[in-house]
Amino acid sequence: MRVFAGFIKRIAGAACLGLVGMAAPAQAEIPDELFAALGLERNAAPNVLYEAIVKRYRDPEQGYSKGAFADLWEPIAFSKYMSPGLFYEGPDLDFEVSARECVECHQGVTPGWVHSWEKSVHSDLDEIRSLTPADSRFYKQDLIKQVETNLVSMGLLDEGQQLEEVGCVDCHMGIGAEGGNHKTDLHMPDAGDCGQCHLQQFAERESERDTAIWPQGQWPDGRPSHALSMLANYETAIWAGMEEREVAEGCTMCHTAQNTCNSCHTRHEFSAVEARKPEACSTCHNGVDHPEFENFMMSKHGVVYTAHGDEWDWELPLKEAFEKGGQTGPTCQTCHFENDGEYGHNLVQKVRWGFQPMKSIADNLDHEWFEDRKEAWIATCSQCHSDRFARSYFEVIDNVTIDAVEKVEEARTVMQGLYDDKLLVGQTTNRPPPPEPSKDAAGGFYALFWAEGNNPSAIEYEFTEMWEQRLMSVFKGVAHANPGGFTYTNAWSQLLRQGIRIRDEDTRLRERAAMLERIRKLENPE
Amino acid sequence: MRVFAGFIKRIAGAACLGLVGMAAPAQAEIPDELFAALGLERNAAPNVLYEAIVKRYRDPEQGYSKGAFADLWEPIAFSKYMSPGLFYEGPDLDFEVSARECVECHQGVTPGWVHSWEKSVHSDLDEIRSLTPADSRFYKQDLIKQVETNLVSMGLLDEGQQLEEVGCVDCHMGIGAEGGNHKTDLHMPDAGDCGQCHLQQFAERESERDTAIWPQGQWPDGRPSHALSMLANYETAIWAGMEEREVAEGCTMCHTAQNTCNSCHTRHEFSAVEARKPEACSTCHNGVDHPEFENFMMSKHGVVYTAHGDEWDWELPLKEAFEKGGQTGPTCQTCHFENDGEYGHNLVQKVRWGFQPMKSIADNLDHEWFEDRKEAWIATCSQCHSDRFARSYFEVIDNVTIDAVEKVEEARTVMQGLYDDKLLVGQTTNRPPPPEPSKDAAGGFYALFWAEGNNPSAIEYEFTEMWEQRLMSVFKGVAHANPGGFTYTNAWSQLLRQGIRIRDEDTRLRERAAMLERIRKLENPE
Amino acid sequence: MRVFAGFIKRIAGAACLGLVGMAAPAQAEIPDELFAALGLERNAAPNVLYEAIVKRYRDPEQGYSKGAFADLWEPIAFSKYMSPGLFYEGPDLDFEVSARECVECHQGVTPGWVHSWEKSVHSDLDEIRSLTPADSRFYKQDLIKQVETNLVSMGLLDEGQQLEEVGCVDCHMGIGAEGGNHKTDLHMPDAGDCGQCHLQQFAERESERDTAIWPQGQWPDGRPSHALSMLANYETAIWAGMEEREVAEGCTMCHTAQNTCNSCHTRHEFSAVEARKPEACSTCHNGVDHPEFENFMMSKHGVVYTAHGDEWDWELPLKEAFEKGGQTGPTCQTCHFENDGEYGHNLVQKVRWGFQPMKSIADNLDHEWFEDRKEAWIATCSQCHSDRFARSYFEVIDNVTIDAVEKVEEARTVMQGLYDDKLLVGQTTNRPPPPEPSKDAAGGFYALFWAEGNNPSAIEYEFTEMWEQRLMSVFKGVAHANPGGFTYTNAWSQLLRQGIRIRDEDTRLRERAAMLERIRKLENPE
Repeated sequence: MRVFAGFIKRIAGAACLGLVGMAAPAQAEIPDELFAALGLERNAAPNVLYEAIVKRYRDPEQGYSKGAFADLWEPIAFSKYMSPGLFYEGPDLDFEVSARECVECHQGVTPGWVHSWEKSVHSDLDEIRSLTPADSRFYKQDLIKQVETNLVSMGLLDEGQQLEEVGCVDCHMGIGAEGGNHKTDLHMPDAGDCGQCHLQQFAERESERDTAIWPQGQWPDGRPSHALSMLANYETAIWAGMEEREVAEGCTMCHTAQNTCNSCHTRHEFSAVEARKPEACSTCHNGVDHPEFENFMMSKHGVVYTAHGDEWDWELPLKEAFEKGGQTGPTCQTCHFENDGEYGHNLVQKVRWGFQPMKSIADNLDHEWFEDRKEAWIATCSQCHSDRFARSYFEVIDNVTIDAVEKVEEARTVMQGLYDDKLLVGQTTNRPPPPEPSKDAAGGFYALFWAEGNNPSAIEYEFTEMWEQRLMSVFKGVAHANPGGFTYTNAWSQLLRQGIRIRDEDTRLRERAAMLERIRKLENPE
Repeated sequence: MRVFAGFIKRIAGAACLGLVGMAAPAQAEIPDELFAALGLERNAAPNVLYEAIVKRYRDPEQGYSKGAFADLWEPIAFSKYMSPGLFYEGPDLDFEVSARECVECHQGVTPGWVHSWEKSVHSDLDEIRSLTPADSRFYKQDLIKQVETNLVSMGLLDEGQQLEEVGCVDCHMGIGAEGGNHKTDLHMPDAGDCGQCHLQQFAERESERDTAIWPQGQWPDGRPSHALSMLANYETAIWAGMEEREVAEGCTMCHTAQNTCNSCHTRHEFSAVEARKPEACSTCHNGVDHPEFENFMMSKHGVVYTAHGDEWDWELPLKEAFEKGGQTGPTCQTCHFENDGEYGHNLVQKVRWGFQPMKSIADNLDHEWFEDRKEAWIATCSQCHSDRFARSYFEVIDNVTIDAVEKVEEARTVMQGLYDDKLLVGQTTNRPPPPEPSKDAAGGFYALFWAEGNNPSAIEYEFTEMWEQRLMSVFKGVAHANPGGFTYTNAWSQLLRQGIRIRDEDTRLRERAAMLERIRKLENPE
Repeated sequence: MRVFAGFIKRIAGAACLGLVGMAAPAQAEIPDELFAALGLERNAAPNVLYEAIVKRYRDPEQGYSKGAFADLWEPIAFSKYMSPGLFYEGPDLDFEVSARECVECHQGVTPGWVHSWEKSVHSDLDEIRSLTPADSRFYKQDLIKQVETNLVSMGLLDEGQQLEEVGCVDCHMGIGAEGGNHKTDLHMPDAGDCGQCHLQQFAERESERDTAIWPQGQWPDGRPSHALSMLANYETAIWAGMEEREVAEGCTMCHTAQNTCNSCHTRHEFSAVEARKPEACSTCHNGVDHPEFENFMMSKHGVVYTAHGDEWDWELPLKEAFEKGGQTGPTCQTCHFENDGEYGHNLVQKVRWGFQPMKSIADNLDHEWFEDRKEAWIATCSQCHSDRFARSYFEVIDNVTIDAVEKVEEARTVMQGLYDDKLLVGQTTNRPPPPEPSKDAAGGFYALFWAEGNNPSAIEYEFTEMWEQRLMSVFKGVAHANPGGFTYTNAWSQLLRQGIRIRDEDTRLRERAAMLERIRKLENPE
C-alpha cells in the first residue's frame, strides 16, 4: 500500500520536501502497466513503443471497430467525422494538391481553419525555438526535440534534421508529405496519427486501458476511460438498437476521445492553454448524468478559478502552474491529470467510484485497490489541504455516496417487486419489448432513449433517472465539494423525491389491485 | 436557388477566394426586401429612407400599439419603460434644463448613468476622430461620417458641420437640442430615435419584417423577429388575458427589442464590444423554451470562446474579427449576424425552424425557401468547416428535430383523445375556462401562465412543456452542437419522459373509466 | 421615515449632490444598533469595542454552540473544520515549531497554502506601505494603520511599532506568537480572531444580529444573517434529526459564515478582489432555494459584468469602483454591501422579503420597518436608475412576490384539507413519523432530507418544493431582474405546475375515496 511520504516526513521532523516541486522527470512517467501489457521494456526505442501502442490502438479486436452490436446499426453521413478510421472517405475532389496549395486555397474556402492553425505552434515551430528561458512556453523547445527524436526513430525525419512546420498535409496525408490527391490521399487524423509526434502523450492516454482494471469486475477492462470511450458508446445496447440514428450520434459526439485528440485540444489550434482550462472538459462532462463541470464551477475551487484565473499563467505546464504561474486553486486538470506528483494524460489512475457508484464498489472500498487509490487522492488534496482535512473530507465523499447507493437499492427492491408482480401500468396490456439488444427490465437504461406503449411506465422512468442520474449528481456534487450540488439542488433531495414517488406509486398500484379484486369478487360472488 | 460559390470554385480549381476577406462594402447591405416593401430605390437619400422606415416603424397599424387584445389589459407603472412610445410621460419636474445641466445634475443624482455615458463613444467623438489606422476602433471614423451624412440629409446638421458630442438631450429631447423642459420635453428614445444617426443599422433591423415571410404561413408575416418582438408579446393570448400584470411584464422585459436598441447595447455606454459577446444575447435567449445561450456555452464553440476569448480583439467589427482580431471560434454574432459573407442587424434571414419546430415546417423543408436558407447556413458554417461536414451536420440537425416533432405529434394524438373523450382529471366537474382571449384546449399554451381548478390537468401541463419547451430544447441543443443538450440532459430523454407520462396517464385514465363502468353496472344491474 | 434626499434636492433645483461621491467617512459606519445592543458609546476604544463584540460572538448562549437540538446529533470528523470553535483539536503532532518553520515545512508539505499566502497582503505588508497614491491599493495603507491602532489598543503591539507580517502563527497560534506546539497550540481561526485586526469589518458583520430584528417576528432575532448562519443550520429540525450526518454536513458547508471570514475571502490569500466578484457569493447563493447567482448572471446587470468586468479595476474599494474604477454595472456587492451610500459587511440592513417570502411579510409591507427598507433600496437603485424607475420596478418585485405567495397559500389549503381528511397516499397505512425534533406535517420541510414509507407522499413533496423553492425562485428572479428567472424557466410556470398537480391529486384522491365508498356500499348493502 502506498505510503503517504509527506506526512511521514513531517512527523519525523525530517527535511520537509513536498510532493510538488521535487526534482522529477521533465514529464509524467508513462505508467508501468502499459509496458507490462505490451511486453515492452521501459527503455524501448520510440519506434518500438509507438508500433506496439498503435497496433493495439487500431486493432478492431481491441476496440477500433463498430463493436459487438455492429450488425444492428449503420453509420450516418456525419459518422465519418466521429469515427474517421471506420467511416471516412475523401471528398469527391480528384486532383493533386501540394502542401502550400492546401493552405492557400483553404484561406479562401475555410478561412476559420487556417486562422486557427496560424495561431498554433504547428504553424511556426521557429517561434518556439527562438524563445528565451524567461518565456513560459520555453519548455516547448524540449517537446519539439522529443518530437524530432520520435520522428527520427520512426524514419520520418533524418538524424539531425529539424522539423520545419506541421501543416495540413503532415496530419491529413502523412508526415513530411509534399502533397497528394485531395480525394484518395486525404484522411482525418486519429490519435495514432498525433501519437507519431506526441508519443509520450499518446502512450499516457493509451495506458488508461491498462490501469482501469477493476478488482471485482465492476466495469469491463480498461473502462471507463477516454482510451476506450468510443467502444463504450458503440457497445451501449440502446445506442446500437435505437432507430433515431442522428440522436444516437449526439451521444457519439462526446465519445470521440478514443478517436481523436481534438476533443480537448480543439482543432486546428490544438492549444495546450485551452486544454488546461476547466471549460475544455465542460462539453462532455456536464449534465444530468455527469455534472462535473457545474459542480466544480460552483465549488470554492471554481470560485478561485473564476475570480483569479485571469491572473494565472496558463502557458506553463500543469506541474509549474502553482509555483511559477501564480495559480492558487485547482482546475479539473490539477487534480485529474496528477498522480503521485506527476502530470500526464492518463486520467483514470485514481478512479474509485468511477462513472457510476454501485453496490459492488460500496461493498469493496476496503480492498487494497480502492485503498491505494484513496491514498493517491489524499496525496493530491494534500498539496493544498492538510492530510487530516483531506481524509475527513474523503469520509464525507464516501459516506454520502454510500448513503445514496442505499437509497437506490431500496427503490430497486420496490420496483422489482412491482415488475415481478406485474403491477406496473400497462405491464400486461401494452408493453412492447425494447429494441434488440436491450432486454426488458424494470427501469432499464433504454428508457432514456427509447419508449413505446407503456414501456417504460412513468414510475420506471423515475427509477432510471434515480439510479443513472441523481445518484451520479450526489456523488459528483460531493466529490467536487459543491455543497448545494450534493444536498438540495440537484441531488440528495431529488434522490429522495424519486424514492418518495416510487413508494407512493407502489402503494397506489397495490391499492388499485386490491380494489380491482374487490370489484371482481362483487362481479363474481362465490 | 443559391449557388454555393466557394464550393464550385474549389472544384473548378479556379482562384480560391472565400466568402470572408473578399472585397465588400464597408457594411452589410440592407436587404433588398426592405426597399421593395417600402417602394424605394436602393440609392434613396438618407432622409427619404429614414422617413419611410420610421413611418412604418411608428405606425400603430403595423405594430407600434397595444395590439389586437388592447382592450383586455392596462399598463402598469413599469410599462412606461418597456414601451415608452405608448406609455411614457415625463416626470413631474416642470422646469427648464440645459444640455450641460443634465449631465451635471445627474452626476450627483444618478452617477451610474453618467459614468456609463462617459465611457461611450457618444461622450467623446473626438477621441475616435483622433485614432490612427492602427487602432481597432479606427473604422468608427467612417461610422461617424455616415452619421453626419444622415443628419445633414435630415436637416439636423449643417453641411460640413461636425457632430460635437451625443449627450443626454440629443436622445432624450431631440438631436441638437440646447435643453428643454424636464417634464414635457423629456422622452425615452426608441429605435427610431437611434435610427436617425444609425440609419444603416436601423434599416437592417427593420428589414426583419420583410425577410421573415414564411412560405406556408407558419408564422405571421415578419415574425418571429426582433423588429416585431413587442407586438408578438402583446398579441399572445394569455399574456393579454392574465390577471397578474407584473408577471406578464416579466415577459415584456425580453420583448423590448422592437422598442429599443439597448436590449443588446446596454444603456448608457451602448457598447459595441458588449453587443458582440455571447452574453449580450443571454438575458433573453436562455431558459426552458429558448436555451440558446446555455447550449452555445456548452458546445465546443463556447469552449473556444471561454478559453481564448480574452485574447481576441473585440473592438474590431464582426467581419474582421477572425482575420485581424485573432478570433478562432464563433460567437452567437458570428453566425447569426452573418448572411452571404456580410454582417448586419437582420438576424432572421437564415431562420428555418424558427422559434418553434412544427409539423408544417418539417413537412416543407424541401421547399425552395427552406432550401435557400439551408444553403445560406452551409455557407456560414463553411467559413470554418468543410462544405461536406456542414451538410452532414445539417442532416443531424434536421433529422433530430423531425424525430422530436414526431414524438410531439404522437403525444398530441393521445392528449386530444383524452380531451375528446372527456377523460382528463376533473374535466367534467371542475374545469373553468381560461381567461379571454385564450380558448380551452388540451395542453394549451395558457397553462404556463394561468391555472384554475383542474384546468389544466397535470398531464396537460406535461404536454404543454413537451411541445413548447422540450421540443425547443432538442432543436436548440442540436442546432448549437451541444451533445448533452439534445440527448439526455434537457432534451431527448425528457421529451421521451413526457411521452411516457402521457401514455401512462392515458392507460390509467381509461382503466379508471372502465373500473367506474364496472361499479356502475354493479350498482345498476340490468 | 427616510427622506429620499437626492430626489428632494433635484426638485428644489438645489445644488445636485448625489448619494455617491459625497464626502463621507473612509469606511462604512458601523450601524448604531450594534452600539445600542452592546451598551457602548460610538467612540468606544478598539479594545473595548472588540471585547464586547467578541464576548457576545463566542457566547454559547448567543449562538456559539450546537444549538437547541445539541443532544440529537454528533459531529463527524469533518465538523472540526466547519465549526472549529466547537470541535477542533490539533493534530497529533506534539512538537514545537517556530513561525519560520511553519512556512518552510508547509512549502513542502502543502505548497498550495503557502503559494496563496504569499500572494496575500498578509505576507508582505511593506509592499502596501510602499505604494504611491496612484496605486489602486493605496487605500490599504490606511487599513494597515487601523489594524495597528487596534492591536496597540488591545496590547498586542507596542505604540509606534509596525506590524511586520501576518504569518501562519499569528492566526493559528496568536498574534505576535514566536511559535508554539503543533498539537496543543494550533487552532483554526474564527471571525473573532480575524476581528482583532479587522475590527471594523468584524463589527459590521456582527451588527447583522442587531439590524435583523423583524417587526412582526417573521424570523428569529438576528436572522437570517451571516452572523448567525451556523446557528440557523444547527437549529434546523431535520438537520439535527437526520441520520446521514455527512449529507447534513453538506448543508453546514455553506453555513460557515458565522464561524469564519474565509467563506468569502478564500484562504489563504484572503483576497478582497475575489470577495468583490459575484462568484464569491455563488457557492452558497445558488440553486433551487436561493438562486441569486444564476439570476444575477442572466440579468442585464450580470451581462454588463461579464462583458466589461475585465476592464474594471477590482483593487479599488466598492465605494470608488464606479467613479474611479470604470465599473458600469452592479455586482452582488454593489447593492448588498451598500446602505445609505456607504459600504460595509452588514448585508441584511435592507432585507425585506428575506430568505422566504411569506404571508406575514406580504401582509405587513406598509409597516414603517418595511417602508424604510424599501426607501433604502430605492436609494441604492437610484445610483443608476431614476427614482421613478426604481419605484415602478419595486412595484413589480412586490406584486409578483405577493402573487406567488397567494398561489402557495391556495395550495396550502388544499394540502391541509387532504391531510386533515386523511386522504394522502398511505396516510393511514404507512406513514412513519419524521425523526425528532421534526413534527409530522403536510409538506413539511423535512421532506427534502428525510423520507420513509409514504411520509411524505409524492404530492406533499411537490408542495414542499413549491413553498420552499419555487416561491423563492419567483422572488429571487424578479428581485434580480432576470426576466426568464421569474416567469417561465424556473419560477412562475413551475409554481403553477405545482398548484396544478396539487389540485389534480386532490380531485384524484377524493374521487378515489368516493369510488371506495361505492364499493364498500356494494359489499355491505344496507
